[in-house]
Amino acid sequence: MKQNTYLSKFRNALKLNNLDAYIQPRSDMYGGEEVPDYDARLKFLSGFTGSAGIAVITLKKAILFTDGRYTLQAKVQLNKSWEIHPLHSNNWIDWVTDHLNAGQNIGFDPWLVTASAFQKLSEQVKIKDIAIKLDKKNLVDQIWINRPKITQKEPVRWKDNYFAVNAKNKVNDLLAEMQLRDLDALIITQPNQVCWLLNIRGNNLKYTPFFLGFLVVEKNGDLNIFSQCDIKYIKGNLRNHLFYKLEQYLSKFKNKNVAINNKNCPSIIYNKLKHISAKVENSFSFLQEKATIKHNKEIQHIRRCHISDGVALANFFYWIENNIKKQKITEYDASEKLKNFRAENKNFICESFPTIAATGSNGAIIHYRPDEKKSKIIDTKKLFLIDSGGQYLNGTTDITRTVAFEKQSSQIINYYTYVLKAHICLAKLVFRKDARGNEIDAITRKALWEQGMDYNHGTGHGVGYCLGVHEFPPTISKTSDSVLMIGQLLSNEPGFYIPRKFGIRLENLILVKKFSNSINNKFFCFETVSFCHFENTLINKDLLDNKEVHWLNDYHEAVFQKLKKFLSQDVRKWLRNKTKKI
Amino acid sequence: MKQNTYLSKFRNALKLNNLDAYIQPRSDMYGGEEVPDYDARLKFLSGFTGSAGIAVITLKKAILFTDGRYTLQAKVQLNKSWEIHPLHSNNWIDWVTDHLNAGQNIGFDPWLVTASAFQKLSEQVKIKDIAIKLDKKNLVDQIWINRPKITQKEPVRWKDNYFAVNAKNKVNDLLAEMQLRDLDALIITQPNQVCWLLNIRGNNLKYTPFFLGFLVVEKNGDLNIFSQCDIKYIKGNLRNHLFYKLEQYLSKFKNKNVAINNKNCPSIIYNKLKHISAKVENSFSFLQEKATIKHNKEIQHIRRCHISDGVALANFFYWIENNIKKQKITEYDASEKLKNFRAENKNFICESFPTIAATGSNGAIIHYRPDEKKSKIIDTKKLFLIDSGGQYLNGTTDITRTVAFEKQSSQIINYYTYVLKAHICLAKLVFRKDARGNEIDAITRKALWEQGMDYNHGTGHGVGYCLGVHEFPPTISKTSDSVLMIGQLLSNEPGFYIPRKFGIRLENLILVKKFSNSINNKFFCFETVSFCHFENTLINKDLLDNKEVHWLNDYHEAVFQKLKKFLSQDVRKWLRNKTKKI
Repeated sequence: MKQNTYLSKFRNALKLNNLDAYIQPRSDMYGGEEVPDYDARLKFLSGFTGSAGIAVITLKKAILFTDGRYTLQAKVQLNKSWEIHPLHSNNWIDWVTDHLNAGQNIGFDPWLVTASAFQKLSEQVKIKDIAIKLDKKNLVDQIWINRPKITQKEPVRWKDNYFAVNAKNKVNDLLAEMQLRDLDALIITQPNQVCWLLNIRGNNLKYTPFFLGFLVVEKNGDLNIFSQCDIKYIKGNLRNHLFYKLEQYLSKFKNKNVAINNKNCPSIIYNKLKHISAKVENSFSFLQEKATIKHNKEIQHIRRCHISDGVALANFFYWIENNIKKQKITEYDASEKLKNFRAENKNFICESFPTIAATGSNGAIIHYRPDEKKSKIIDTKKLFLIDSGGQYLNGTTDITRTVAFEKQSSQIINYYTYVLKAHICLAKLVFRKDARGNEIDAITRKALWEQGMDYNHGTGHGVGYCLGVHEFPPTISKTSDSVLMIGQLLSNEPGFYIPRKFGIRLENLILVKKFSNSINNKFFCFETVSFCHFENTLINKDLLDNKEVHWLNDYHEAVFQKLKKFLSQDVRKWLRNKTKKI
Repeated sequence: MKQNTYLSKFRNALKLNNLDAYIQPRSDMYGGEEVPDYDARLKFLSGFTGSAGIAVITLKKAILFTDGRYTLQAKVQLNKSWEIHPLHSNNWIDWVTDHLNAGQNIGFDPWLVTASAFQKLSEQVKIKDIAIKLDKKNLVDQIWINRPKITQKEPVRWKDNYFAVNAKNKVNDLLAEMQLRDLDALIITQPNQVCWLLNIRGNNLKYTPFFLGFLVVEKNGDLNIFSQCDIKYIKGNLRNHLFYKLEQYLSKFKNKNVAINNKNCPSIIYNKLKHISAKVENSFSFLQEKATIKHNKEIQHIRRCHISDGVALANFFYWIENNIKKQKITEYDASEKLKNFRAENKNFICESFPTIAATGSNGAIIHYRPDEKKSKIIDTKKLFLIDSGGQYLNGTTDITRTVAFEKQSSQIINYYTYVLKAHICLAKLVFRKDARGNEIDAITRKALWEQGMDYNHGTGHGVGYCLGVHEFPPTISKTSDSVLMIGQLLSNEPGFYIPRKFGIRLENLILVKKFSNSINNKFFCFETVSFCHFENTLINKDLLDNKEVHWLNDYHEAVFQKLKKFLSQDVRKWLRNKTKKI
């Protein structure tokens, strides 16, 4: 069945419900990057599989708002009934306000539109006398044929020794903060915060070990989870309810002080709190920061986890170098092989995102994903870029290398070397602790700018601890004003791309730590935790200064020393050569 | 007469006027950094001479709000009747709201409080039922004994060939923009914009060749100036009125579209426009940017002007090196001597700000200013920092050097070298043209951060063209989000300070220009226009990389080549040695 048939079915549902427009976000009620199949409503309706977007469907138009990363992809995936508009902040609200008329009605699922979007939307449409019809039933669900079954299992148990602080102590710290702020309750709507606080993980998603649920923390210490899981107790003693019961549960907070995060909180929760005259507090950011900080015990796990990951990568690169000229290897084959090497480790759970394995010009497509049936055979003459990661019981990894199987032009070698300079710059950067993400981003790009080069993506994103491979707020990008904190884990991934030609990206993960030479504790620096060699044949030593050469040689020596005892003799010998001093 | 006597007189005036509090800003009605003596009301009332501050005087309290640069100075200058509070944005409004009660009255001079401050103040006090009493007479003026006479002469004429575009064409461009935005009038309240638009300059201030006046531009091309100058016509054909007549003049814009800049516009103008139901537009930023861009002809003048300035500096440093051990030279003597060397140039008008000539620990006081009677004798054993500049018919200069007259410790030499590295980094930086001021600032500081070093001031400020030595919006600092534009002139002035020990600052001016290697015009870089040697005896070559050494040697060669023909034989020989390759 084609998507436009769904659209006409959907418009019938619109009419039946007396609606003139419907808002359907790509995300589920948790607002995350990854959505379970049974909540992939936008994909069902439109065919779009990008990780960010929101659709506005009227009786005449169907618009997909999505960001620059997915414009091309959307054009391929959507049929002609759809228009594709650039998404920035909540600009779909402006479109709705401009294109609807007084007396018309808008509908949406209040579990899917956030409180902040709802606030802006209702302010704007009120001026034009456009009405919002609040109805809990989701219109897409009404026409969704063969919707995947909603299944949510109990969270998987982690041993306590994976965590620096047990859940009880974390909850007590939180309760103390709530008391300081005179809060009666906190409604946590971000699964990474729920997982962090309770030391639990889930297995609903393919790449992210979130347990998907909302958590209500009350000042007396009561904890109630609201999820799609139908068991009564989680981890033995935590009460669990079906998510839709949350609305009714909130009635008890009449006139009370309740904190939410309105950028993430479903509007249904916000509206209920307003309805019962709760005092809604939106600036309680305690968990926002805490949940991204890794403590010593966890950092030790993260270091070990990255050594395991490095072993898989060494085995993979050894295998591909030794086979690429003997047999045809597709991008998809390569990504499967790497997954299998990772899976040899006992702590491995799953990949942390779909592997980007890209030969030649595919490397220039930043969110490329090889298709099992249609992916290209890796061209030994061209650069090969592979960006992948794993979820392990003891951490989350994310690493990119760009390699060559034959001699490359001096221009390609120089491009690679400049990207490496940017990578090294960030790896050994010392920064004032109040430096903002956009400042650190600019410092990293300096070596590229000098050559008139740049890359059209961020330099670094936060990474969870066996949680999301993209964890916020820590971000190093040109729009980031966040400051970094000791114990946060980020990616260091500068790149350079020539569309339709090639892509170069070099990514390790880095931990924020105190700079020891700092007299007054004013400076931070990073520790690189990923261990995988860079491609020496792609490095022009003349373009590196002494300190950069020193960093590279030290790093390569560390790669060899950390990995050697886990490698077979052949691979070890091969890696010794790969990591020799330049 | 002591300041507290003025304060009791002032409180009598408060009572007579039935006021409970009065707001007295440091600035005059133009909001500038430099204020004529006859408008220095805060100085009269309190004794405070800093360049930023605002006083709130109630019947019981007298508070000076000022920023971190002036806290120490204020403590010295103010007597015990005054409290000193840190100033950030408009926090004095919070104080007023918190400390006054319902039914009480606030007064201020509506020419001195800006529209944006007025808007915030009136919103906040309304909630507490505190009243604003609008009265045009200034309360300080009522008690000001021996107030300096208000004198404003006609603007001085500049020859047309100093400007790239004549005033008529600039006005026509402006009128075209106004038409696009459907504006009936624009009220320009920033003197630098008035001077830029009309190609006029004034001589009211000691360091800044502003003609102080407001300009009303009407869509039919009518131009009316409102100033404290009592002549009828300026530059022959521009009508000039006494400033207070502006309020009455605005009556003609009833129901019209009028643009202002409410951060700078006196509240009296804003209130009048509101009163006559004019539609007030606050986002017309055409002049904001245009007035800071120097075009080719002006850039040629700026380059020549900086060579003249470099000649004065070479003569000065030759003189001080040859005399410092023979005679006692005070900081003040040095600043006078430098002024005299500058004055030898026929285009010299005046200094562009009070020279900071600072020996030893005085160098660590960022806004130090040697007093004629009390300044220190320059200690030949210690570092000497001199930050100075000139106003010339063909440009404005601002330059800082830190020099030594005897051998310094290796630690001092290293500190100097790291500051020089930061300076060179910015001088030769290539940056993406949308990079923001805080990003460029961070890049500059990297070499210092690596050593746990930093400086507590911005890296660069805009500089006018025979106008203010501080010109906005271009700024390179940790809080700046402005982007730079081709033709803007900025300072490059990293530093390092150890309080009570020494200060190091190295400052040149740099012009923003296109980076020629940029394929797609996406990158900008700088051209250094200041020419003065750095202190080779304070440079540890081992800490510089090859590119830095190269930059320094090239720069020194340029200094010698540009200045040599204007120097006496002795100074030329001395400079040859000062600029020899390291």
